[in-house]
Amino acid sequence: MIRFECDYTEGAHPRILERLIETNFQQTPGYGVDEHCQRARDLIRRACDAPEADVHFLVGGTQTNKTIIASLLRPYQGVIASESGHIAIHETGAIEAAGHKVISLPKNREGKLSSAQIRRVWAAHYAEDMPEHAVQPAMAYISQPTEYGTLYSLEELEEISRTCRECGLYLMVDGARLGYGLAAEGCDAGLPDLARLCDVFYIGGTKVGALFGEAVVFPRGKELSRDFRYYIKQNGGMLAKGRLLGIQFETLFSDGLYLEISRHAVRMARKLQDAFESHGIEIRYPSTTNQIFPVVPNDALARLSGKYAFSHVEPVEGDRSVVRFCTCWATKEENVDSLIRDLPAALSAQ
Amino acid sequence: MIRFECDYTEGAHPRILERLIETNFQQTPGYGVDEHCQRARDLIRRACDAPEADVHFLVGGTQTNKTIIASLLRPYQGVIASESGHIAIHETGAIEAAGHKVISLPKNREGKLSSAQIRRVWAAHYAEDMPEHAVQPAMAYISQPTEYGTLYSLEELEEISRTCRECGLYLMVDGARLGYGLAAEGCDAGLPDLARLCDVFYIGGTKVGALFGEAVVFPRGKELSRDFRYYIKQNGGMLAKGRLLGIQFETLFSDGLYLEISRHAVRMARKLQDAFESHGIEIRYPSTTNQIFPVVPNDALARLSGKYAFSHVEPVEGDRSVVRFCTCWATKEENVDSLIRDLPAALSAQ
Amino acid sequence: MIRFECDYTEGAHPRILERLIETNFQQTPGYGVDEHCQRARDLIRRACDAPEADVHFLVGGTQTNKTIIASLLRPYQGVIASESGHIAIHETGAIEAAGHKVISLPKNREGKLSSAQIRRVWAAHYAEDMPEHAVQPAMAYISQPTEYGTLYSLEELEEISRTCRECGLYLMVDGARLGYGLAAEGCDAGLPDLARLCDVFYIGGTKVGALFGEAVVFPRGKELSRDFRYYIKQNGGMLAKGRLLGIQFETLFSDGLYLEISRHAVRMARKLQDAFESHGIEIRYPSTTNQIFPVVPNDALARLSGKYAFSHVEPVEGDRSVVRFCTCWATKEENVDSLIRDLPAALSAQ
Amino acid sequence: MIRFECDYTEGAHPRILERLIETNFQQTPGYGVDEHCQRARDLIRRACDAPEADVHFLVGGTQTNKTIIASLLRPYQGVIASESGHIAIHETGAIEAAGHKVISLPKNREGKLSSAQIRRVWAAHYAEDMPEHAVQPAMAYISQPTEYGTLYSLEELEEISRTCRECGLYLMVDGARLGYGLAAEGCDAGLPDLARLCDVFYIGGTKVGALFGEAVVFPRGKELSRDFRYYIKQNGGMLAKGRLLGIQFETLFSDGLYLEISRHAVRMARKLQDAFESHGIEIRYPSTTNQIFPVVPNDALARLSGKYAFSHVEPVEGDRSVVRFCTCWATKEENVDSLIRDLPAALSAQ
Repeated sequence: MIRFECDYTEGAHPRILERLIETNFQQTPGYGVDEHCQRARDLIRRACDAPEADVHFLVGGTQTNKTIIASLLRPYQGVIASESGHIAIHETGAIEAAGHKVISLPKNREGKLSSAQIRRVWAAHYAEDMPEHAVQPAMAYISQPTEYGTLYSLEELEEISRTCRECGLYLMVDGARLGYGLAAEGCDAGLPDLARLCDVFYIGGTKVGALFGEAVVFPRGKELSRDFRYYIKQNGGMLAKGRLLGIQFETLFSDGLYLEISRHAVRMARKLQDAFESHGIEIRYPSTTNQIFPVVPNDALARLSGKYAFSHVEPVEGDRSVVRFCTCWATKEENVDSLIRDLPAALSAQ
Repeated sequence: MIRFECDYTEGAHPRILERLIETNFQQTPGYGVDEHCQRARDLIRRACDAPEADVHFLVGGTQTNKTIIASLLRPYQGVIASESGHIAIHETGAIEAAGHKVISLPKNREGKLSSAQIRRVWAAHYAEDMPEHAVQPAMAYISQPTEYGTLYSLEELEEISRTCRECGLYLMVDGARLGYGLAAEGCDAGLPDLARLCDVFYIGGTKVGALFGEAVVFPRGKELSRDFRYYIKQNGGMLAKGRLLGIQFETLFSDGLYLEISRHAVRMARKLQDAFESHGIEIRYPSTTNQIFPVVPNDALARLSGKYAFSHVEPVEGDRSVVRFCTCWATKEENVDSLIRDLPAALSAQ
Repeated sequence: MIRFECDYTEGAHPRILERLIETNFQQTPGYGVDEHCQRARDLIRRACDAPEADVHFLVGGTQTNKTIIASLLRPYQGVIASESGHIAIHETGAIEAAGHKVISLPKNREGKLSSAQIRRVWAAHYAEDMPEHAVQPAMAYISQPTEYGTLYSLEELEEISRTCRECGLYLMVDGARLGYGLAAEGCDAGLPDLARLCDVFYIGGTKVGALFGEAVVFPRGKELSRDFRYYIKQNGGMLAKGRLLGIQFETLFSDGLYLEISRHAVRMARKLQDAFESHGIEIRYPSTTNQIFPVVPNDALARLSGKYAFSHVEPVEGDRSVVRFCTCWATKEENVDSLIRDLPAALSAQ
Repeated sequence: MIRFECDYTEGAHPRILERLIETNFQQTPGYGVDEHCQRARDLIRRACDAPEADVHFLVGGTQTNKTIIASLLRPYQGVIASESGHIAIHETGAIEAAGHKVISLPKNREGKLSSAQIRRVWAAHYAEDMPEHAVQPAMAYISQPTEYGTLYSLEELEEISRTCRECGLYLMVDGARLGYGLAAEGCDAGLPDLARLCDVFYIGGTKVGALFGEAVVFPRGKELSRDFRYYIKQNGGMLAKGRLLGIQFETLFSDGLYLEISRHAVRMARKLQDAFESHGIEIRYPSTTNQIFPVVPNDALARLSGKYAFSHVEPVEGDRSVVRFCTCWATKEENVDSLIRDLPAALSAQ
């Protein structure tokens, strides 16, 4: 089986494994106060052009989303998200388990939340006679890239950020696939832009070259992250051997590795999307990153599914389905080429 | 600095790293349904003599405790634990964050909870006219070995188990350091005993040779663990690259590795304890595992602390402190010998 | 100011106050185990034709919704509700504070949830490869009458009930205004129907003649309500002087008082709605109970608002707003007549 | 049965019922923004000599404790309480359900928490290398009077307050029986002292003359209670007919009623305690308020229990039990006299 169903089908970039072996018998204190973590923090601060940033490392995305949101919201507050946002549908109610409503709004056709939507929710809340009868919106959550592989432009981010500041809402960016966004053609918002525009964001490692790990960045330092380590521990994200996270991010943020491997994934995805398009296949979401969303006849999918793994998004008219193919840092070009070669036959029975 | 302050100062056993490298470019589905996880589950079932057991892998101990307890207790129920139990004091209120009271009871002189204590709490609850005004005890939580390195004997476990069954309480065993217990001289309760006597337990990897990972065992199969994967996901413990856990436990439970490396740690700890005792140093808790608790004059500690890391437990009479030295699978005998050599001089100024 | 903005503008039905005075110096045990509560439970069981029903009394609606849902759902489960359901928007995230997602679905044009919607959510969940990544739907919550004053027909309730049973979902009916539903013309679902068709429902007192109080009915006895008193206490709903709830429901369910006073409110609402309609005013929701939802020009509303209180629902096209006028058991016909008299002038400037 | 088992065996003071009847058909807005509530707030501010105080009304004690603590603590913080504190043992884990650990400390012989204990917990927490592995103490909770009827002296309160301020802990006073404390002989801490010394406290109505109701006072105004109404609503404490709370506290705080009826209860309790003592009965806790704790032979209790209700606290040596007799605003002196008359015969078989 050649797997395109997600971007965590392999282990880690070899340079990370090498570093784990080199450092294996070093003795370090636990829980992320070791030198590797410190160096990784410095590298990230530099990449973000945010020398004051407070940086923490957690293991996975759901845990990271829950921990951040639990740390910033008061019990009666909720977080605004697109209905396709990861926290809204794919985290088994982790945010609700932390006591907070996810205020889900319809995604626009690029899978995004808009500044106007955020403002409307906020305005509607305070327009009530007794707003205290409803959950108070306190944060906007967006994913960059989105769950549909699309990107917020710098202009969109600026506008969302402005709205959030005017409304007194926190802005959080889920960057589980951030590398694939930064590496995408046309991406005009870099790490320093995120650091400037949002209150907290994270840089995904799990899907971008690491065994696991997410680097949380509070750009303005301890202001919003005082006692954040208590939250990490309470939410089960305080890795005993914290250095494993430090070593991985140290490696990813040395010698441009993070961007380099991300670019590869994006190139593979573009190549695959081009192939689908060359056969007249509609692409449902205008992703420019490592995920592609072709609308494929169901019989073609049946033929492909013996050899290739991909994921189903939704059935649509005409006996077709939106499906998702992911590439990642580890995707072998030969596997992409194989799929491209197999496409004509699979699609021929249309 | 030579570190004895905890048992997670190094990376992982080299065989684990080798396996990670060998399998690195295998493509597997995520979230623990891969073949490595399946094989690791089988190996653990076999080791526990529990062919029906439902086995799950999580990343760390706090997360594991929280997830298990959240899955078994109803909102108004609490868990009985020793005041020195990990869930009672070292998890930043994770259990309370899941909504449950930890009913802390005084530890006995071996750092244990007794069957009689458990029964008293249970009886006192139901002796109330309106028990619904108090938290209902629903589970007993014990650590094997305890946080003080001591072990429940098989007889003690049998009695606690009987009490729990008679009272309708779940019995959970935190085995974060289980290997060091199983490898201890005099340990008469093996994995099959745990499987027979308790409702759920876990086998610690983080402290016993793995990079991270805890293997949760529900000995009687799905009976108590229906939908446990929802709990894992909600609590942020569903590792995307779940195979990493499978590979590690597969390795630890092949060729007796888990016990072999545990025995080394125990031997190192005994050697170190013998040295302390040979200098007339009192040992506070009768640990037979990988932790030792000497009561050392504070000035000697000051002298040692430049070269050796250990952890402070509590100050006691006579300008002394109870301290903890841990060994682990990775402890180098030369480091133990070095400390033993340095002891006389450090203690000489008494 | 003549108030129509809600149905809790006055105190309690005089017979209730009389009974409070008569019983004031009786000594009773606390927390709802007194004779008044027992008698009230019996009266309710009889009215529901559910001799085995387990009946509990709580103080208010939000508390009741939260307590019931907390008692029936496991942490990873959610409750399906209409987007206009009280739990979805007017309880400050109480359900989320209990850890559960409210799975909000678009209301149909009568403000209702449909059986088909419920089935779709359920089917979509289990159609996923790994459903454990999303909240598991476990309950359907409907309000009878709805927040828009409309009623589920017996046929609709039968269908929803059948769907819930087939899907293994609990069915809960919020009856905060149940009296006004039972008293409505055309209501073909009585208390015994609710007892037969749903797993739990409650009979509202706060809005229907009592000072406060909601009577929760588990029709099939303790099966689903074991330890429910623990939940009541934990959620702050265990009234010390529980007899106050008993006395009130005893009074409401004696001599047909509950229905009698509900009928009055419905008659007043119908009279008022007829008046609006006679002036060509559109009625947005086809309520047959004690709430009416005319679509009134904003300038007319401005003229009325000096003398009458009502509540704003939403602005609509044509400088109009959907507003809500409520009647209740205490509504004086002279006040309704006064408003009817003032309508022509208020509306004249259209 | 003559009931002394608690202080909520009757309804409400007749003046309160009269006022409920007088105001019954007034129309008021809901949720506590009516004129009665405003007037009651003013009366309480005046009684507390705290013109800036923010005052809120809730229904019962457990709800009030949970709501206050949920509003002031962050998820990783806990509240220090005596092991006999109401939140520690009699609220079915309501505080834990809000996510917070109750850090229970041994009561001293008067059933109190001491300033020294509070400081020790705080100091021990911050003495840890990594305090983030434990719950952060953030509040001290005391009851005035205590659950054993004893009173903190003004000096003790001053000291506790000073400690809390030095340590950065909130000080909360549970005043469920506050009236009976204020009315006790020797009480040297009045409402203005509480307002000066603590961050939040409440004045109990349920046990002191009202049908139900607790008045929460944040002495320094909105500083600590911004958005407190969201918390009330989320925790199910926002009474629809909020005026019922306003009317009751308006009545209790007019013409000195609250103190007057409290004094009666205290006088009755003292009379009863004197009687027990005159028979050589040991009094376990030195209560000066409305509860008394005699240590009575079990056979005497058996003889009394046919005619009198009281509550059992704990069995003690010598076939005796500590029991509790409560008086309240409604206690009839003839009932106290009856019990006093029956004592000699009941005790004679000793």
